[in-house]
Amino acid sequence: MYQHPTMDPQTQERLSTIRHSFSHLLAAAVQQMRPEAKLGIGPAIDDGFYYDFLVDQPFSLADLKEIEKRMRKLAGRKLAFSQSSMGMAEAKALLAGQGEALKVELVEDLASQGETEVSFYQLGDFSDLCKGPHVAGTQELPLKAFKLDRVAGAYWRGDEKRPMLSRIYGLAFLTPEDLAAHIEQREEAERRDHRKLGKEMDLFVISPDVGKGLPMFTDKGTTIRRALERFIVDEELKRGYLHVQTPILGRKHLYEISGHWEHYQDSMYPPINVDGEDYVLRPMTCPHHFMLYAARPRSYRELPVRYAEISPMYRKERSGELTGLIRVMGFHLADAHIFCKPEDVKPVFREVVDLIGFVMETLGLAERCWYRLSLRDDHKEKYIDAPESWARAEKDMREICEELKLDAQVEPGHAAFYGPKLDVQMATVGGREETLFTNQIDIALAQRFHLEYIAEDGSRRMPWVVHRSSIGCLERTIAFLVEHYAGALPLWMMPVQVKVLPITDEQAPYAAQVKAQLEALGLRVELDDRKETLNRKVREAKMQKIPYLCVVGSREALEGTVTATNRDTDRKSTLPLDQFAAAVLKEHAARSRVLAAAGAA
Amino acid sequence: MYQHPTMDPQTQERLSTIRHSFSHLLAAAVQQMRPEAKLGIGPAIDDGFYYDFLVDQPFSLADLKEIEKRMRKLAGRKLAFSQSSMGMAEAKALLAGQGEALKVELVEDLASQGETEVSFYQLGDFSDLCKGPHVAGTQELPLKAFKLDRVAGAYWRGDEKRPMLSRIYGLAFLTPEDLAAHIEQREEAERRDHRKLGKEMDLFVISPDVGKGLPMFTDKGTTIRRALERFIVDEELKRGYLHVQTPILGRKHLYEISGHWEHYQDSMYPPINVDGEDYVLRPMTCPHHFMLYAARPRSYRELPVRYAEISPMYRKERSGELTGLIRVMGFHLADAHIFCKPEDVKPVFREVVDLIGFVMETLGLAERCWYRLSLRDDHKEKYIDAPESWARAEKDMREICEELKLDAQVEPGHAAFYGPKLDVQMATVGGREETLFTNQIDIALAQRFHLEYIAEDGSRRMPWVVHRSSIGCLERTIAFLVEHYAGALPLWMMPVQVKVLPITDEQAPYAAQVKAQLEALGLRVELDDRKETLNRKVREAKMQKIPYLCVVGSREALEGTVTATNRDTDRKSTLPLDQFAAAVLKEHAARSRVLAAAGAA
Repeated sequence: MYQHPTMDPQTQERLSTIRHSFSHLLAAAVQQMRPEAKLGIGPAIDDGFYYDFLVDQPFSLADLKEIEKRMRKLAGRKLAFSQSSMGMAEAKALLAGQGEALKVELVEDLASQGETEVSFYQLGDFSDLCKGPHVAGTQELPLKAFKLDRVAGAYWRGDEKRPMLSRIYGLAFLTPEDLAAHIEQREEAERRDHRKLGKEMDLFVISPDVGKGLPMFTDKGTTIRRALERFIVDEELKRGYLHVQTPILGRKHLYEISGHWEHYQDSMYPPINVDGEDYVLRPMTCPHHFMLYAARPRSYRELPVRYAEISPMYRKERSGELTGLIRVMGFHLADAHIFCKPEDVKPVFREVVDLIGFVMETLGLAERCWYRLSLRDDHKEKYIDAPESWARAEKDMREICEELKLDAQVEPGHAAFYGPKLDVQMATVGGREETLFTNQIDIALAQRFHLEYIAEDGSRRMPWVVHRSSIGCLERTIAFLVEHYAGALPLWMMPVQVKVLPITDEQAPYAAQVKAQLEALGLRVELDDRKETLNRKVREAKMQKIPYLCVVGSREALEGTVTATNRDTDRKSTLPLDQFAAAVLKEHAARSRVLAAAGAA
Repeated sequence: MYQHPTMDPQTQERLSTIRHSFSHLLAAAVQQMRPEAKLGIGPAIDDGFYYDFLVDQPFSLADLKEIEKRMRKLAGRKLAFSQSSMGMAEAKALLAGQGEALKVELVEDLASQGETEVSFYQLGDFSDLCKGPHVAGTQELPLKAFKLDRVAGAYWRGDEKRPMLSRIYGLAFLTPEDLAAHIEQREEAERRDHRKLGKEMDLFVISPDVGKGLPMFTDKGTTIRRALERFIVDEELKRGYLHVQTPILGRKHLYEISGHWEHYQDSMYPPINVDGEDYVLRPMTCPHHFMLYAARPRSYRELPVRYAEISPMYRKERSGELTGLIRVMGFHLADAHIFCKPEDVKPVFREVVDLIGFVMETLGLAERCWYRLSLRDDHKEKYIDAPESWARAEKDMREICEELKLDAQVEPGHAAFYGPKLDVQMATVGGREETLFTNQIDIALAQRFHLEYIAEDGSRRMPWVVHRSSIGCLERTIAFLVEHYAGALPLWMMPVQVKVLPITDEQAPYAAQVKAQLEALGLRVELDDRKETLNRKVREAKMQKIPYLCVVGSREALEGTVTATNRDTDRKSTLPLDQFAAAVLKEHAARSRVLAAAGAA
């Protein structure tokens, strides 16, 4: 696990100012070319800027070229950005006179928030309601590090009852190299997009008849899931976790006890009423595991109790955002709840961090991941009121981070309402930061469920609960793995590990024997004996990212060998079947991330 | 798989007549002893008879003794049963005069159904509305094969708004031996009840806060589930099934297409409305698998396509009937849908029968199971209208049964609306017949989903679909296995396979080594190093049905041996640890049903 490289705040601010200034330059150019275009808003964003325009005819990609040319021409005139202030009535009158009805609405909003003055920025003939800041003049804009990018429709204020505006996106960076790197990264991310690769590799199907947030895993996708699932279940069992299976439904009452119904209802699907009783699809597993813990008395001797489950759960997403394996209606989290004495939380958390490190290394995602330590901020009303426990849990969590040298990024304000979190953050291939999963010290929920244990002195005490994952949600993790490896997953998870290609029909019996011998070892093998050219078969197998292609011709059949090509190195070697089989099996069992067998010859 | 032993129809009818006659004798005795008792109904049932009485004070178990005495006394008077008929008005007046309001209601019902006459049976002073038949007289009743059994409350006509009656149950058989065997079987069934054993063995927990039809599997129960699940998934993969994973939700629309919403809605939970779209918890997997099949064009070359899944699904049960692992709100079925050319259905079905036979043998349930061939009856309106396909499918199914010598019990009227079924029936330890799961030839649903394949001649054809299971619902199968083995499950599914018991603390290091060595082989081992007597530890381990107890004392530690006791034979042997480990591993890997290791010495 590595620390995420972050930009220093000054550079970040400078870049943001440049991007925002580009958005004004864009609007100035557009209003020169289309005087009837009315203005929405034009902020800086992650990779550049955009501006929304109310126009009769939305912009086309062809328009962008002309607009970009005009922007460069305007910038060449070394125009200065100059600020002025105005009273609210005056500003409204000015904007109304220009026909800028949307801007008038913004001024009215500011007025209703108690503002008495607004700021305008002037750039040549173009003036815009804006609180800045901007660069001094267009000569400061890195014109070689900017490019108009694309157009999209966007409702005014995201409200589908308001007018549809035409949005122009631009990319802007500090240097041409940064711009080029960003474009390359984006193209790479598109090439690696799990939705695209998922289709090419036949991993999952989304059917509109079933529901668009409800992906169905094909046999190939399911093989990946099963490999991950058995890996993590077996690893957790070895580490003392008790794997359990609890149902996806629970009485609504259960979530009223936990507080989810009160605090988390927006993320839950509506209840199902059965014979007068409300049941809900669970959004998390905690209450079920709590009830298992509470099913019998617990002694300090048996703590920590580590309940783990590959938990199906459902959380509500906006239907417009449902896509691929990442934004889905339901998913399966490798979940666990560790019930421990409060004084044992540090060793328990250390075990958790050790497991996560091991899993991320095994998957090959460690280089993309880092920790974020999420603590409280000053809004004390957001958190349960238990100052001593909070102080202790935050101190424990900080010390864990220090002792284990986790280099965690500290983020006040991201804590759960019931305790501090250690989040596993990831950089996607597109450069976005995502939370892979979170780990929490829970100093509060045990009380709501009256969980307790009998201490050494015979007293009844409340355990703390560590909520954690190890491999995250199977669906998301598979999506990230597919993107990280551009589909060429490590051998142990690949749906087909070896493809056997007989050169002619004469080798069919030997090819079948090769397949049978490899399958007897538990390997996943396909035989391609279609009447197609070898070249075509090889090409298709490569597109499917098959780790090893075994071509068998008359010589191989005679000598009991295979000619295997390694997917990652593209090296070809002829070696005895037994030796090849043993090498592939070793790689499979070791969950190796580097394909080696064909090179072993 | 065996044929179920069934009683010949004449004997069955004779027994039913005797049981019904006993119920009249019961009512006669009760009305002598409690003249105010009013009559409900008194039918023969599976193991005897009952009679419902409207009384102020429900009967107690103590009452039963007295009533049974009175019945025997009445029977000793060799009373005859004599029948008479009566017009409806006369019958109503007679019964009203006797204050038998419930019987009056029955007469009114018969009248409304168009009856013009009713039958009465007289037994001594006792007369009852009854269409018979009865034995000639009480001297024909096998008094030594009968016994009053228990009392229960029962609403008149099962309607909770009607009066609560007091029901007396009696047992009645042809011979005293049959009665004794039945009582013994029932006691055995209670001893083996999976709810009782599930608690003792800590396999699952039912929490009222979660919901009573929503059992939660503990780590021990989950280990059994995982053993069964991995067994069946791996076996099916070997046999060419494509295991997939599809979501438990689907749009309501999907079930409107399939016809389930129309025909099966009573068994489905109400929809969940999300952003204007109705989703339902699926009651079966067919539509999801159909949509996977339909996701791309199919050629005859790739048929049969065998989609399998350990499918979570939810079916509505009456909340009053939810209990244990058998009547639950949701369950996991080892489900599959095989898409094949209609002309291939026989070999496909043969494969299915072969797999079921293998699975039932491996589980040890074959001796309890038999096949039932469910065909159409004369109510043609119950079935889809495709006479040619029906004739062909029924003929195929009959031929499969004959060719494979399945000795199937033929049952017209039990077919699905879309095709004939081959049900796997089971006798529970209580002697009840249960359907473990069903296998179907579906000649119709493919059409509703427009499923097709490109035939050899390039035409588009509709596949037939075989719906099948292999191991049934995991929850139910576990319940039946626990009952069948009285908890002493075969080693390969046992949550704890070996328990290591050091005699004193001095052997702790060696005991830990024994555990580690066995665990390194993938075996499930527990070490009991509590400060308790060895006797107590052995007693507890036996109650937990642990297959092997390994006692290690100073001699074992010195010599590197274990003294192992075999659960099933209770034989004890001292043998080298390596040899013991190898024997247990062999038994585990072979999924042996006979524990052998300790006897190997």
